[in-house]
Amino acid sequence: MSAPTDSDLWPDIQPDAARRLLRAGLDSFAERGYHATTTRDVATAAGMSPAALYVYFPSKAALLFEISRDGHQKTLGLVEQSLAHAGSTTDKMRYFVRIFVAWHARRHTIARVVQYELRSLPAKEYQVVRGLRRNIEAGVRALLGSGVEHGEFDVPDLHTAATVVLSLGVDVARWYSEKHPKTPEQLGDEYAELVLRMLRAG
Amino acid sequence: MSAPTDSDLWPDIQPDAARRLLRAGLDSFAERGYHATTTRDVATAAGMSPAALYVYFPSKAALLFEISRDGHQKTLGLVEQSLAHAGSTTDKMRYFVRIFVAWHARRHTIARVVQYELRSLPAKEYQVVRGLRRNIEAGVRALLGSGVEHGEFDVPDLHTAATVVLSLGVDVARWYSEKHPKTPEQLGDEYAELVLRMLRAG
Repeated sequence: MSAPTDSDLWPDIQPDAARRLLRAGLDSFAERGYHATTTRDVATAAGMSPAALYVYFPSKAALLFEISRDGHQKTLGLVEQSLAHAGSTTDKMRYFVRIFVAWHARRHTIARVVQYELRSLPAKEYQVVRGLRRNIEAGVRALLGSGVEHGEFDVPDLHTAATVVLSLGVDVARWYSEKHPKTPEQLGDEYAELVLRMLRAG
Repeated sequence: MSAPTDSDLWPDIQPDAARRLLRAGLDSFAERGYHATTTRDVATAAGMSPAALYVYFPSKAALLFEISRDGHQKTLGLVEQSLAHAGSTTDKMRYFVRIFVAWHARRHTIARVVQYELRSLPAKEYQVVRGLRRNIEAGVRALLGSGVEHGEFDVPDLHTAATVVLSLGVDVARWYSEKHPKTPEQLGDEYAELVLRMLRAG
């Protein structure tokens, strides 16, 4: 598996200079942490001047916010895709765990920055991201609740089960690397099987 | 639940000044990240001069290493305690998940610094910590393997199952706070039940 390009990561961001800055910000935050990174570091890594950076992002915080907002929006998209997936709730949950785990393996650098630098977001930006996180959690709880309602899942505590399902996916980003013998999708399949056991599905 | 004191965290570290420095290092690394923290920041937070810090820790890296080594040693202790626990392998695994999850909830700040700043350790120190991590993983795999051998567990892939069990505990540190409605032990019990389901125990 080769490292993703800037346009793999942010196909919808234009122009190319903004994407380059996001990538430089991502790599610097992942390497040294948000607080140890200056806007000059990011601009230099993107081959630009600090002044040019401000054309696209008014601050370092705006850059982190864009990485975080986009990452959360994409994982919320995975939840929505799963809720709309054909088949039983068991099928939807299998599909969700598979794509959620695979995303966190493939996008481990983004996921790490998104999760570990959450507290570095300014208050207003944090609220926006928090709203997205609540929607992600609510979506997973809806999936679990629907499984219970249809007699497909046995769940002692919806809140804990939702946390565990999300936790398993998120934590893959902490340790996964391209050197891992399993592909993101293989891992996703294994995790899906384990989660369905946990829910006593099928 | 009240915040832990320095002597709760490091009862075996002497003298008090060294403990105060560990605590100041821990809080600063957790707040701003390792790279954005200077030895002066740590010394000031501990109410000491940078020169006094060097009496106990030759560098900022030595401080991170001590936090990391001690944290890993303690979690390895939990694995060893569980292997030696009375009863069936199912009992040992239930006990392990309970104390491992509770530890990561109660010691969430230590666990976060230990996990997220792993790559900030110098090469030699990283090797020591890596050895401890391998022993932790091997212990959990031994627990799983013994359960399979005794016909107590059904595990599709030992390596993935060990990763998942550890992941569930470690990730609690990412989101747990003292405001959470459940105590570390309540959470530990719920997680233990879910893990045993995953292993098709009992």
